[in-house]
Amino acid sequence: MPPFGFLHMRAWASLFGQLLRSPRAVCIREVHFHSQFAEAMLTSQLKPQQEKSNFIIKTPKGTRDLSPQQMVVREKILDMVVGCFKRHGAKRLDTPAFELKEMLTEKYGEDSGLIYDLKDQGGELLSLRYDLTVPFARYLAMNKVKKMKRYHVGKVWRRESPTIVQGRYREFCQCDFDIAGQFDPMIPDAECLKIMCEILSGLQLGDFIIKVNDRRILDGMFAVCGVPESKFHAICSSIDKLDKISWKDVRHEMVAKKGLAPEVADRIGDYVQCHGGVSLIEQMFQDPRLSQNKQALDGLGDLKLLFEYLTLFGIAEKISFDLSLARGLDYYTGVIYEAVLLQTPTQAQESFNVGSVAAGGRYDKLVGMFDPKGHKVPCVGLSIGVERIFSIVEQRMKTFGQKIRTTETQVFVATPQKNFLHERLKLIAELWDAGIKAELLYKNNPKLLTQLHYCEDMGIPLVVIIGEQEMKEGIIKLRSVASREEVAIKRENLVAEIQKRLSES
Amino acid sequence: MPPFGFLHMRAWASLFGQLLRSPRAVCIREVHFHSQFAEAMLTSQLKPQQEKSNFIIKTPKGTRDLSPQQMVVREKILDMVVGCFKRHGAKRLDTPAFELKEMLTEKYGEDSGLIYDLKDQGGELLSLRYDLTVPFARYLAMNKVKKMKRYHVGKVWRRESPTIVQGRYREFCQCDFDIAGQFDPMIPDAECLKIMCEILSGLQLGDFIIKVNDRRILDGMFAVCGVPESKFHAICSSIDKLDKISWKDVRHEMVAKKGLAPEVADRIGDYVQCHGGVSLIEQMFQDPRLSQNKQALDGLGDLKLLFEYLTLFGIAEKISFDLSLARGLDYYTGVIYEAVLLQTPTQAQESFNVGSVAAGGRYDKLVGMFDPKGHKVPCVGLSIGVERIFSIVEQRMKTFGQKIRTTETQVFVATPQKNFLHERLKLIAELWDAGIKAELLYKNNPKLLTQLHYCEDMGIPLVVIIGEQEMKEGIIKLRSVASREEVAIKRENLVAEIQKRLSES
Repeated sequence: MPPFGFLHMRAWASLFGQLLRSPRAVCIREVHFHSQFAEAMLTSQLKPQQEKSNFIIKTPKGTRDLSPQQMVVREKILDMVVGCFKRHGAKRLDTPAFELKEMLTEKYGEDSGLIYDLKDQGGELLSLRYDLTVPFARYLAMNKVKKMKRYHVGKVWRRESPTIVQGRYREFCQCDFDIAGQFDPMIPDAECLKIMCEILSGLQLGDFIIKVNDRRILDGMFAVCGVPESKFHAICSSIDKLDKISWKDVRHEMVAKKGLAPEVADRIGDYVQCHGGVSLIEQMFQDPRLSQNKQALDGLGDLKLLFEYLTLFGIAEKISFDLSLARGLDYYTGVIYEAVLLQTPTQAQESFNVGSVAAGGRYDKLVGMFDPKGHKVPCVGLSIGVERIFSIVEQRMKTFGQKIRTTETQVFVATPQKNFLHERLKLIAELWDAGIKAELLYKNNPKLLTQLHYCEDMGIPLVVIIGEQEMKEGIIKLRSVASREEVAIKRENLVAEIQKRLSES
Repeated sequence: MPPFGFLHMRAWASLFGQLLRSPRAVCIREVHFHSQFAEAMLTSQLKPQQEKSNFIIKTPKGTRDLSPQQMVVREKILDMVVGCFKRHGAKRLDTPAFELKEMLTEKYGEDSGLIYDLKDQGGELLSLRYDLTVPFARYLAMNKVKKMKRYHVGKVWRRESPTIVQGRYREFCQCDFDIAGQFDPMIPDAECLKIMCEILSGLQLGDFIIKVNDRRILDGMFAVCGVPESKFHAICSSIDKLDKISWKDVRHEMVAKKGLAPEVADRIGDYVQCHGGVSLIEQMFQDPRLSQNKQALDGLGDLKLLFEYLTLFGIAEKISFDLSLARGLDYYTGVIYEAVLLQTPTQAQESFNVGSVAAGGRYDKLVGMFDPKGHKVPCVGLSIGVERIFSIVEQRMKTFGQKIRTTETQVFVATPQKNFLHERLKLIAELWDAGIKAELLYKNNPKLLTQLHYCEDMGIPLVVIIGEQEMKEGIIKLRSVASREEVAIKRENLVAEIQKRLSES
């Protein structure tokens, strides 16, 4: 694979085809444009802090506004993600931003302290949703839905210490795809991994790998290593930190903070350093301790079947069975997975740590926690870490000085003369009514140069020019901003001619 | 205009072209389908209330989940609204769901009590946003932006008593378009009204009218009628209720609750019963009392200019100068407007009161309230009442028994034989990789009839059938669900043939 450079830029240029300003269109204000873009990219980091009497004007801690440039990047990425979800037959669902507080309790283990509560203003006790999975499970139980393939794109909120450089915020967007229902084993699970591969390949973020494990293998491993059952969840949380801190520190946390016997910790240490493909599954089937544990054997059996399907999907080489993968959330019951980028595109230039970009797993008991009779609906799903992906793409565009159009305006209505506002208004209404994206300056008598500069700044490709002479002759001038070429067109043919030009470009 | 009936249905059918199941495709489960649809449409009203130990599984008061059917309708409507905003050159912006509490204080007058506060969990005091206008003004001031045309689609939250039948919820979606900046008078204001007309016409909701007034005319009217200045805001709030309650009740509120002298109330009553076009503006210019008030004259002058531009835009006949229009929110300073449907499409069948479907106005001082030095950025904008529009469209589709596809799946991969899972998985991965939207059943050995029923239920147009015979001959059967026609295709030509069929349909 060539180092990330011009080739990739071209690939991205095709992805963002309509958004990127063609170099030809840049003539007058190139420098100005560059700085304008850089400024916009920094908006979220700048956070102006100004005093008025005694308040500071800012967004809440850990949150930010999204500038038009950021919104364009976001929409393109979300379109690709949602396109993939639809390709796999998912329906869209939406749930409220907040839930009854009790709906969220006992679902997130150690992380529950990060839930935002609403103030008691008389009435129900409410909390902002912490993810999209628990609301989905609540929806299934509430509506007695036994089978559903759905996606959900929405914001979630967590009171984490925001380390903004890593792209972590207290308000962030999640894109989830889940399959609920009782099916033959591992078919939906394999599809979830296929979807993760399609999205990560499609976004051209560089090489990636998806780590896979199973909660039952973890539990079996804990059991055969001698972890008391009451400590399974706590030890699982510690193991989950292995991608961020060293084994030494994780071992210390388990022994010193969670009271695990040192020899038990060491036995775990032997396992969690293993990762590989199908051969590692075979090896674990033969493991003298693990092979004695029924749960572990069930998990290994399912993983073996999963790899069979992944091979048929042509993605087995992207998947790594990794005994250190734990996933922090309490609700997982079977296979779990997490995608990591092997090298971030801009790593050469800047150290920009992004970690996991997609994750998920099987949670067969969550819906039952909501159902009055405890009826279970098995589920498996995935969540795309779109915020991290947004950060990578923004960082890359900044590095390469790529420019983005934040509007889609096709035609600008200009005049070189005074007292032509009425004519401009009549003309632009005609364009709007024909579905053409058009703008004018909100001035009675703007200068022609100001109007043309605006088109170049905003990347508007066409200008319609109307003046006294044109009025007299019943014509209109149509100007290409890039080539500066002007042609005269009969007034009555204007809309048709513009539509022809736009369909050709 | 013909009564709302089949003609309109056809217009909607073209709008929802891809979504509506073609009647030809319905063969096996027509009845089942109907009831499924009706059920989905009722989801939000049903609100299952079930007991588990001692909790009720439900969404918070005044909120609801949005079903896949509802999401499809929503997305279509939002696409049209956003398309119009883009046609007018707007950039997209996003702001956090919550703001520092102090950002929202003193912006909403009597409505401030409806703001949702977050619990004090140590740190900043936060509130959920109440609209998208105040966050926009905060953004402009914080980033010292002096000029911007932006749109914003997002949820807002208000602790209102939910009267669900009128389509009012505590969580709802807003679609805002605003123009910030110092420009020549009434040009941006006229564009806002043009946008409202384009959207309401485009959505084919039936006939509508946009009421227009000006806060300065209202203030001038209050002054010449003898309302003490300290009571302007309170009286304005009362007048704002004239579209919901009678003049008699509004008069009672002003006199009995707000302490206005009865003769002052009666003088107001003479004015607020006036509405009309340009001639009413001329009449008010001649009004012996109003013509003595500078504020009123400024407002009337601007309205006159506004009507000039509206005529050029070809929408003057949709606009009514209405002295009873007040708009409750505190921040308006100039022209204000509100669009109402003259007759809701289903009114004949059901009494379905929707009221205002779009509104907005000029707010020249809001940004200055955030700026440390009080620098003003004049703004004008509009908000589309999409929730009410969603309700109307859902109601209409329910009335006419229209069906919606909630997925976009193009091809289903089926087999009539046992032990063909591996072949199906390989084949479907090939389709996905070619960008084709495809599904299969997650079963090792599904029955062919079950598979075909699924296609008819879901409106999937094409089925690929693979079996032993086909494998042997190196072919695949491609079946049209609607016509039940089957053709044999060479295995290697399958993707190309499917793409050809899909591009033709």
